[in-house]
Amino acid sequence: MRRVLWAASILAACLFLTAAGIGAQDPVPAVAAGAVLLEDLVAANRILADQGIVDGYGHVSVRSDRNPNRYFISRSLAPELVTADDLMELDLDSNPIDARGRNSYQERFIHGEIYKARPDVMAVVHMHAPAVIPFASSSVVLKPMFHMSAFIAEGVPVFDIREAAGITDMLVSNSTLGAALARALGSRPAALMRGHGAVIVGPSLPITVGRSVYLKTNAEMQAQAIMLGGTIKYLDPEEARKAGTPDGYQRAWTLWRRKALGR
Amino acid sequence: MRRVLWAASILAACLFLTAAGIGAQDPVPAVAAGAVLLEDLVAANRILADQGIVDGYGHVSVRSDRNPNRYFISRSLAPELVTADDLMELDLDSNPIDARGRNSYQERFIHGEIYKARPDVMAVVHMHAPAVIPFASSSVVLKPMFHMSAFIAEGVPVFDIREAAGITDMLVSNSTLGAALARALGSRPAALMRGHGAVIVGPSLPITVGRSVYLKTNAEMQAQAIMLGGTIKYLDPEEARKAGTPDGYQRAWTLWRRKALGR
Amino acid sequence: MRRVLWAASILAACLFLTAAGIGAQDPVPAVAAGAVLLEDLVAANRILADQGIVDGYGHVSVRSDRNPNRYFISRSLAPELVTADDLMELDLDSNPIDARGRNSYQERFIHGEIYKARPDVMAVVHMHAPAVIPFASSSVVLKPMFHMSAFIAEGVPVFDIREAAGITDMLVSNSTLGAALARALGSRPAALMRGHGAVIVGPSLPITVGRSVYLKTNAEMQAQAIMLGGTIKYLDPEEARKAGTPDGYQRAWTLWRRKALGR
Amino acid sequence: MRRVLWAASILAACLFLTAAGIGAQDPVPAVAAGAVLLEDLVAANRILADQGIVDGYGHVSVRSDRNPNRYFISRSLAPELVTADDLMELDLDSNPIDARGRNSYQERFIHGEIYKARPDVMAVVHMHAPAVIPFASSSVVLKPMFHMSAFIAEGVPVFDIREAAGITDMLVSNSTLGAALARALGSRPAALMRGHGAVIVGPSLPITVGRSVYLKTNAEMQAQAIMLGGTIKYLDPEEARKAGTPDGYQRAWTLWRRKALGR
Repeated sequence: MRRVLWAASILAACLFLTAAGIGAQDPVPAVAAGAVLLEDLVAANRILADQGIVDGYGHVSVRSDRNPNRYFISRSLAPELVTADDLMELDLDSNPIDARGRNSYQERFIHGEIYKARPDVMAVVHMHAPAVIPFASSSVVLKPMFHMSAFIAEGVPVFDIREAAGITDMLVSNSTLGAALARALGSRPAALMRGHGAVIVGPSLPITVGRSVYLKTNAEMQAQAIMLGGTIKYLDPEEARKAGTPDGYQRAWTLWRRKALGR
Repeated sequence: MRRVLWAASILAACLFLTAAGIGAQDPVPAVAAGAVLLEDLVAANRILADQGIVDGYGHVSVRSDRNPNRYFISRSLAPELVTADDLMELDLDSNPIDARGRNSYQERFIHGEIYKARPDVMAVVHMHAPAVIPFASSSVVLKPMFHMSAFIAEGVPVFDIREAAGITDMLVSNSTLGAALARALGSRPAALMRGHGAVIVGPSLPITVGRSVYLKTNAEMQAQAIMLGGTIKYLDPEEARKAGTPDGYQRAWTLWRRKALGR
Repeated sequence: MRRVLWAASILAACLFLTAAGIGAQDPVPAVAAGAVLLEDLVAANRILADQGIVDGYGHVSVRSDRNPNRYFISRSLAPELVTADDLMELDLDSNPIDARGRNSYQERFIHGEIYKARPDVMAVVHMHAPAVIPFASSSVVLKPMFHMSAFIAEGVPVFDIREAAGITDMLVSNSTLGAALARALGSRPAALMRGHGAVIVGPSLPITVGRSVYLKTNAEMQAQAIMLGGTIKYLDPEEARKAGTPDGYQRAWTLWRRKALGR
Repeated sequence: MRRVLWAASILAACLFLTAAGIGAQDPVPAVAAGAVLLEDLVAANRILADQGIVDGYGHVSVRSDRNPNRYFISRSLAPELVTADDLMELDLDSNPIDARGRNSYQERFIHGEIYKARPDVMAVVHMHAPAVIPFASSSVVLKPMFHMSAFIAEGVPVFDIREAAGITDMLVSNSTLGAALARALGSRPAALMRGHGAVIVGPSLPITVGRSVYLKTNAEMQAQAIMLGGTIKYLDPEEARKAGTPDGYQRAWTLWRRKALGR
């Protein structure tokens, strides 16, 4: 009798754990980076999808915490589907260290060339959020609407691939184009890409993801403010400098990460 | 005792499979087309609903891979509800081969007449996405905002049923009207329909569904860009030609299909 | 042993049915109307919430199929929460037949007075959808953007409660105000209410709910079309008359009802 | 045999209760306030997240029902994650009574200073809803579009932190700034904060949360009405005064609370 009860209890526990998605997390593979960093990168992929920053396209990378000349990024896959097993290590020329037959994103050079040019950058997001692209292709300039997007006051240049390379397929698919984009970005936190999207950088994954979210929010708010037809008071550059990144987006990151990883 | 444990294990497994939706997929019926093609057509129906391209109305079809003079489309049903059992085979005059008492969409002639006129077309979507209709009824022309919707540079003509047939109930409900729409479409990837919606075509289901999604996204982005009030740089026709269909929308299709079929 | 298996099977089945929401439907109470009509009314409440037509406020009613001088409507409750047990029968003066201690909506007179004035009307929706109210308070007139909202061509008058009763709390909270609204509605399918919302009527619940959904969709599309800044071709009145209510919104109703009732 | 059935029944019941989320509610801690008030505060946090009023940032507080010189607010945490265990009691100088190592929101002074200045206020919301900020930074004034947001007719002043304190990091992070905001608010139900967000107050949590929701809805509707380009009839001040808070937002609160707490 007792054995039946024990067996039933174990089955019930298994059922519950399965239903709750506990145990469904992907094990972090044994690669040359801290486990938390890679788990954060998986979370970042899913957060960007949850927040509508990326759809089937777009990507996010993080610089290795063990070797500044390496970065991690998913194999060519929609960010929403990324698990730890999909992560690849690349050098700064964007060559995979151990591809194991997996394909890389065609535009991985965006990441490698920015890491080369910007030692301060630890994470890079590339995305096509619909709210942002109108500003990438308009003469109207993106400006900071509120303290959460104060970083926009540093300037968000527009990279026009045509100025760098004439008529192209619009993709940043080699080192030369990646380096041109990195030059357009300069020392700024983000750049728009005409007819394409945007690239956002930062000193950590939480800050880079947070900037991506609030770049989009700011674009939506600015479009609405313009539509009202009155005069608009953007954040003063000095206010923006003081505001900085309010809390490194840590309060939001805690929320987003928990939801993205289901715990 | 052991038999109890076995029985409990089996029950638990069944419960889990049921809860996870595994095994809930409709078996592909024994019709004259490849099983994958029909499963893709079921997926396409659900993807278009998931992405807000169709609501209770709209439809998607695919040309048979065994007989170019046949196509598959659901019986008259909201796309979100379509299963393999709802698929019907029609000839290019849009007559069902074996209706088994099922009703066809009243506007199936959109599909049949386009397949007749365009041997290159393997899939057709008809939809009423709210973001697209303002362009279908406005003098403002849809133009390509980014590389994912580069196909728009080929031109998206507006079909006005009134020019073809005078005062109607707006429905393309016979072969004559279907042929008029096919003529308006010409060799283009999509046509808007004044006071009605749009039709999108392509060489495969993934490309046709992808074009449907990015036609809508482009319409939303272009409306926002116009609202900003500045000058807009649309994709250059040569850039658009080079961009083509970036990856045949395969990365997005993999994501969409997995979510639509629950696996 | 066998009894254990039987018991386990029954438990498993119960668990599955519970999880699937089957059996969770409220039993239809024994009142003076067909069971399907009342189940449709429960569905209509939830559909209007699902579709964003109502939020915590707004209501829907149906005329009794057994006594044209009676109608059914929920007790004062957010539509999303309505079950069969919440339905009340009212006479056309909007007095409850058997309140059983339940409160009625303060604005139930909208329903009673329209049923009095319009023998053709079998269902009434009152709502505050945000997309519709800008037209209720603007000099810009709602016009039909596509065949699914062709009924708008019959005209959607704006009821201004101030013209009927001077300064009020904006609520149609008695028979006099209800009758004034019914007069403003006249023979039309819908009326906007300045600074308040709209009322939509029809010969059945599916058509009235369908009109509510497409009134909102049309308002969104027309606002976007206006924003584009070009000239707009609205549906021609003759086209609209021919289009009518394409299929009585039956294809959409089948989808909406199945989702609202969870089966 | 019977004991197996009993055990299985209990397990099944536990599984169901767990799956349904019943029993998952956080126990209300033994603090100096009524249990219902604190449960309402937990609900208010989640409702504001559900309704898109707050994201990872923003906060809501309630004045103690046992000591008017105290209020309750969560520790520094995204509102969506708040449980009863996260609630802290603060005095009106915004010092925690018993922090137990938990951090307070940096901008808690918004709450304390308003409770000092406004004995009628029992609850305070601070938020950054994207629909509201364009009005906070535009010369266009927020006006009441419908009876549900009639409170806007009392006036929604714009607090510009620069007028109070020159160049800052935009945060109301001390008592002086909190008092300046409270002065700008005056006797009104809400104030916008230039380049930041808004603060909403009221005589109860349901009314304060309701006002927060309809402040956002009104902003969205007013932007759309302006976009239509015609003349707009806002609510007359006398109508607004009569409309008041229709039902204290009780019907909506019942819906929101039930969904937020999962029962």
